Amino acid sequence: MTPAGAAPTQICGLSLDDFLVRMEEFHGHASPGVTMGGFMVDAAWRQLGDAPYLNAAVETVVCLPDAVQMLTPCTLGNGFLQVLDWGKFALTLYDRKSLQGARAWLDVSRLEDYPLVANWYLRRPENQAVEKDEVVRAILAGGHGLVRVRPVRMRAGLKDQDKVPTTACPACGEYHPQRQGTLCPACAGQAYYDL
Amino acid sequence: MTPAGAAPTQICGLSLDDFLVRMEEFHGHASPGVTMGGFMVDAAWRQLGDAPYLNAAVETVVCLPDAVQMLTPCTLGNGFLQVLDWGKFALTLYDRKSLQGARAWLDVSRLEDYPLVANWYLRRPENQAVEKDEVVRAILAGGHGLVRVRPVRMRAGLKDQDKVPTTACPACGEYHPQRQGTLCPACAGQAYYDL
Repeated sequence: MTPAGAAPTQICGLSLDDFLVRMEEFHGHASPGVTMGGFMVDAAWRQLGDAPYLNAAVETVVCLPDAVQMLTPCTLGNGFLQVLDWGKFALTLYDRKSLQGARAWLDVSRLEDYPLVANWYLRRPENQAVEKDEVVRAILAGGHGLVRVRPVRMRAGLKDQDKVPTTACPACGEYHPQRQGTLCPACAGQAYYDL
Repeated sequence: MTPAGAAPTQICGLSLDDFLVRMEEFHGHASPGVTMGGFMVDAAWRQLGDAPYLNAAVETVVCLPDAVQMLTPCTLGNGFLQVLDWGKFALTLYDRKSLQGARAWLDVSRLEDYPLVANWYLRRPENQAVEKDEVVRAILAGGHGLVRVRPVRMRAGLKDQDKVPTTACPACGEYHPQRQGTLCPACAGQAYYDL
């Protein structure tokens, strides 16, 4: 991590231009959350150092999963990224064998030193959309100095390693985990669709 | 979708070779689940047709999120991919304005016509790892014919559009949604890490 205020030149080894291109391609647009998340991944990875069995945990479903998926080998679908729906703008990279990790978060005590970033993060003024490109530029120009990181030790690996027994739903015929009961969630009333 | 048994030549407009490269890059390895998921995305998208506001829902955290994120503009972090932890190997693409969708799933009634795919999907023999590359080849050679698709109508868009009010946790100082109470989940006892 570069000192607060100094403009960075790279994120996880990518030039800032390459990072912006990758963010547009994967996330779809220039996003303050993904940009700050990029610096958080960068800071956590530097703190962690070499981790042969890299895993990640993000503490919100918004933006941060994409920063991790763009910059590390950890994805939701391969199981190396765990997503907690806590609504916290923080993430941890760790080695799933050693359980050594590094957690990065946003230091809100210094937020007001970066007015555009503060307005974005605190959603000010209320009911007014921020100009995302401007916030991204503010983060790239120094706002990433708000990122803090420290070593942590994981209580356990977060990846669910166990294969769960599955069974065919008697109503729809599709397989689902036995622990859900006889009917699958959709046939049990949780379907999000009508046929 | 090509007829069952006929070997496909593309997945979402990608040649099979390009698909395999993209899967290795993003998911990290050749995965039967991501490959079958690729054909499911392809089948659902063809059924759905033009969808200016494309969203996706996957019914398992395993493999399928990566197929969607590799092949569509929908990612977890941009909110256009919703992940249900149902353990069902199925997905829906839909237009979030019209709520018209197409759901793709695996037709287990025909599974035994594809022995390698059946062994992978039903985890046979027990406690024996499948040779993933072989299963991927079997899917590419015709096993994708197990994919079924049909139109659905969404009961509601799945993306959470509302901004939730946040507040600083008095213990750690980090912001979290007010609805969680005063303390954030980590300070309230759910932390997955020790400092």
